[in-house]
Amino acid sequence: MPSFDQASLHAGIADPEMDSMRILSETALRFPDALSFSSGAPYDGNHDLSGLTFYIDRYIKHLRDRGVPEQRITRLLFQYGPVNGLIQDEVALMLKRDEQIDVPVEAIMITHGFQEAALIALRGLFASPDDVLLAVSPAYVGIRGAARMLDIPVRGILEGPDGLDPQAVAEAARAVRAEGKRAAALYLVPDFNNPSGTVLPRAARERLLEVAAEEDFVILEDNPYGLFAREGETQPTLKALDTDGRVIYLGSFAKSAFPGARLGYLVAEQEVVDASGTVRTLAQTLSKAKAMFTVGSSTLSQAVIGGYLVEHDHDLRSATRELAAVYLERLDATLAALGEHFPAGADHGVSWNTPRGGFFLTLKVPFTADLAAMERSAREYGVSWAPMSMFYLEGGGDREIRLGFSNLAPEAIREGIARLARFIDATPRDIPDVSEGQA
Amino acid sequence: MPSFDQASLHAGIADPEMDSMRILSETALRFPDALSFSSGAPYDGNHDLSGLTFYIDRYIKHLRDRGVPEQRITRLLFQYGPVNGLIQDEVALMLKRDEQIDVPVEAIMITHGFQEAALIALRGLFASPDDVLLAVSPAYVGIRGAARMLDIPVRGILEGPDGLDPQAVAEAARAVRAEGKRAAALYLVPDFNNPSGTVLPRAARERLLEVAAEEDFVILEDNPYGLFAREGETQPTLKALDTDGRVIYLGSFAKSAFPGARLGYLVAEQEVVDASGTVRTLAQTLSKAKAMFTVGSSTLSQAVIGGYLVEHDHDLRSATRELAAVYLERLDATLAALGEHFPAGADHGVSWNTPRGGFFLTLKVPFTADLAAMERSAREYGVSWAPMSMFYLEGGGDREIRLGFSNLAPEAIREGIARLARFIDATPRDIPDVSEGQA
Repeated sequence: MPSFDQASLHAGIADPEMDSMRILSETALRFPDALSFSSGAPYDGNHDLSGLTFYIDRYIKHLRDRGVPEQRITRLLFQYGPVNGLIQDEVALMLKRDEQIDVPVEAIMITHGFQEAALIALRGLFASPDDVLLAVSPAYVGIRGAARMLDIPVRGILEGPDGLDPQAVAEAARAVRAEGKRAAALYLVPDFNNPSGTVLPRAARERLLEVAAEEDFVILEDNPYGLFAREGETQPTLKALDTDGRVIYLGSFAKSAFPGARLGYLVAEQEVVDASGTVRTLAQTLSKAKAMFTVGSSTLSQAVIGGYLVEHDHDLRSATRELAAVYLERLDATLAALGEHFPAGADHGVSWNTPRGGFFLTLKVPFTADLAAMERSAREYGVSWAPMSMFYLEGGGDREIRLGFSNLAPEAIREGIARLARFIDATPRDIPDVSEGQA
Repeated sequence: MPSFDQASLHAGIADPEMDSMRILSETALRFPDALSFSSGAPYDGNHDLSGLTFYIDRYIKHLRDRGVPEQRITRLLFQYGPVNGLIQDEVALMLKRDEQIDVPVEAIMITHGFQEAALIALRGLFASPDDVLLAVSPAYVGIRGAARMLDIPVRGILEGPDGLDPQAVAEAARAVRAEGKRAAALYLVPDFNNPSGTVLPRAARERLLEVAAEEDFVILEDNPYGLFAREGETQPTLKALDTDGRVIYLGSFAKSAFPGARLGYLVAEQEVVDASGTVRTLAQTLSKAKAMFTVGSSTLSQAVIGGYLVEHDHDLRSATRELAAVYLERLDATLAALGEHFPAGADHGVSWNTPRGGFFLTLKVPFTADLAAMERSAREYGVSWAPMSMFYLEGGGDREIRLGFSNLAPEAIREGIARLARFIDATPRDIPDVSEGQA
C-alpha cells in the first residue's frame, strides 16, 4: 500500500485547526479515566435506550392517527423521500410554540444537524471567491470548518462581554467592502455563545438587524442553547425580530433531544425567483445543495425526533425545563468550585467569566493552555478541557481554557475542578517576557 | 419578506442541472397516480415498519452480547461519538464476506449515504482549481452535483457497451495534463452503471488499474448494484484487484438495506503521513472533512444497519439473494414488455439496450425526451421516467429515456410499458432536419 502525499490533498485536510471538531468529539473517548470538561456534550443521564424505539413508534402512530395509509408510511420511512425532509410540519409547530417564530413549512429544511444546515447556507450564499463570511470570535469550531471545506474566507469580529457590538460588525462589513470584496453573511450565536457564554442584549439585536439591512448581508443565527435560559431571562431570537428577511435561522436537536440523531434544521423564508419566474422560499431553493450534499436526512432520525416533538406537544421549552435546571445547577457548581479553589486576592493567576447560562465558561490561566497541556492534564491529573485558542478566528486565547460543564454531575464538577486546580498549581507560569514585543 | 436575488447565490443553485437529484427523488411523489420508472428506488415490498425497531434492538443486543457496559451503549447511541462512525467493524466483516475486500477497520468511514462519501472523497482529493474529475458518461447525477457544490470541474468520458475504455481514460488524463491541469480522480460504477447498465469486463478492470498508476490518479469506485448480479456473473471489484492503493471504494446501504437510513461508507486504506510524521489511513485523514460536513453519522441509522448486518452474519450477498431474483425478474419483465409493444421490424423508431442486471435500461425514442415530455407522460399517460440527457456529462441523450424498473412489480411493469407505448405512439417524431449540421 503506497503512501499518499498529504500535500496533494485539500489544504483544509492538512490544517491542524480543522482537527478541532474531532478532538472535541473524541477527547472524552480518548481519555476514559479523565473527568471531561472538553466537549459540549449534553447531559445524558436522562437517556434510556428504550426511548429510541419508543419515539419511532410514536411517530408511526402519529402518522396513522392522521390517516396516512400504511403503505405510504412504510415508503416514507424506508424509501428515498423529499429532499427537504418529512417533519417540517412538526418543526414549524415547535418554532411557533418555543420561539414565536411563525413560518410556513416551505421555509423549513430538515438537515443532518446544525453542521449540514450551516454548510448548505454557506454553499448557497457564497457565490464568488470575493465573498467573505463575518463571524463572531471566539466561535464554535464548526463554522470555520464548514467555511474552510468550501474555500470561503472568514473574518472574525472580536466580541465583548455582551457579545458582538453591532458597530464593530458594520465597520467589519465596510472594511471588507473597501477591499473590493463582499460580506455575504454574518455568523453568530446570540444566546450563550459557544465558547464564551455571552448573550446579546435586546437593543443590540435590533441594531444588528438594522446593520444587516444597511450593509446588505444575511445573518446566520445559530441557537443551540436558547432553550436553557433562566426563567424570565429569555431573549427574542433575531429571527423573531426580523421584519426584513435578513435572518437564516439554524437549529439543532442535539441539545433539546440528543446529538446521536444528527438532526437539525434551516429556516429560510426569503422568496427567490428563479429563471422561469417561479417563486420559492430560499429553503426550497437551497434544496439543490441539500440534494447534492446528502440527498435527504435519515428517516430514522426524523422519526425519532418527530415522535419526540409530537409526544411533547411541540413544546420543547416546557419539555426541557428540568434539563435547563440541570445545566444551571452545573454552571453554579462550576462557579462555586472555582471560587473555592482560586480564592479572590490569592496569587494563583486564574480568573474566569460568569455566564448566565449555556454549557461553557472560560478560565484564564497563567500558562499556555494548548493541546499538549490539555493532554498532560488529562493523562496526569485526570481532567480534560478544551484550549480556547481553538475557537479564536484571528488568534488569541492562548492562556485560556474552555470548561464545558454540561455533561458532568455537580460532584464530578467539584472533583474535576479540584483536579484542574492541582494541574494549574503544578504547571509553571510562562507569562511572556514583557520585553518580547519590543525586541 | 423581500425577494432574494437568485443571481447572488452560488451558480450551482441557479443551474437547472443541479435540480436532477430532487426531480429523480420526488417525481414519484409528485405524480402519485403515475406508474413510476423515474427513480432507482429499490424494491420496498419486503419492508415492514417493525423492522426498524427490531434491528435497532438487535444492534443493542449485539453490543450487550459483546460485553459493552449499559452506560457505554447509551452514550454510543445518544451522544456525539467518533467522527468516522460506530459500525466500521461490522462493515469490515461484510466487505470481507461479500466482496473479498480485506481492510482494517481504520480504512473505513461510515457516511451519510454514498453522496456524503463522494463529497468527502472529492473534498479531500481536490486541492487546486486545476484539479479535474474524470467521470464515466452517462453518470449518476450525484457525482456531478457533489463536484459542482465544491466547484470541481468534471470531464465526462463517453462509455461504450462494455463501459469505460481504459485507453479513452488514459487519453482523457493526458489531455487534461496537456492543458496544464491534473486529473486527480476518475469516477465510475463498474457493475451495472447507472443509467446505462454496463459492466466493465475483467480485463478492462485490470487495465484501468494500470492506467490509474501510469497517469497517477485515484479511482472512485461506486458499487451500489454489484450484489445483484446473476449467479456466476459476479466480477471482482476494482478495490479487490487493487494492489497499488489506487482505489477509494464508495458504498451504500440504500440498495442492500434501505435508502431512508441514508447510510454508506468510504474505504480508503492508503497511508497518509502528516506534518508530525504520524501515519494514518486516508479514511482517518479524511475525517477532518467528515467532521466539518456532518460531525458524524446518525447513530440510529448506524444501529439499524449494524443490527441488519449482525442479523445476517455480515453476508448481504446471501441476505439479498431473493431480492436479486426480484430485480432480475423485473429486468426480464421490462425487456419482454418492450419486445411485445415494439416488435422488431415495425416502424416505431424505438430501441433499447439489454443489460445483464442493475436497476435501469435505456430506451431510444424518436422525439426529444426532456422533462416537459416526461411530465406530459406522467400527467396524461400515467407513466413517469427520467430523461437520459440528465445523466450525460458532455451533452447527448436528448432522445433517450431511462427506465428504472426496480420498484415496480412485473404486472405494473407490463401496464407501465403499455402506457409508455401509448405515450410514444402519440408523441410526434422530431428527428432533426438532416441539413441541421450543415446550416
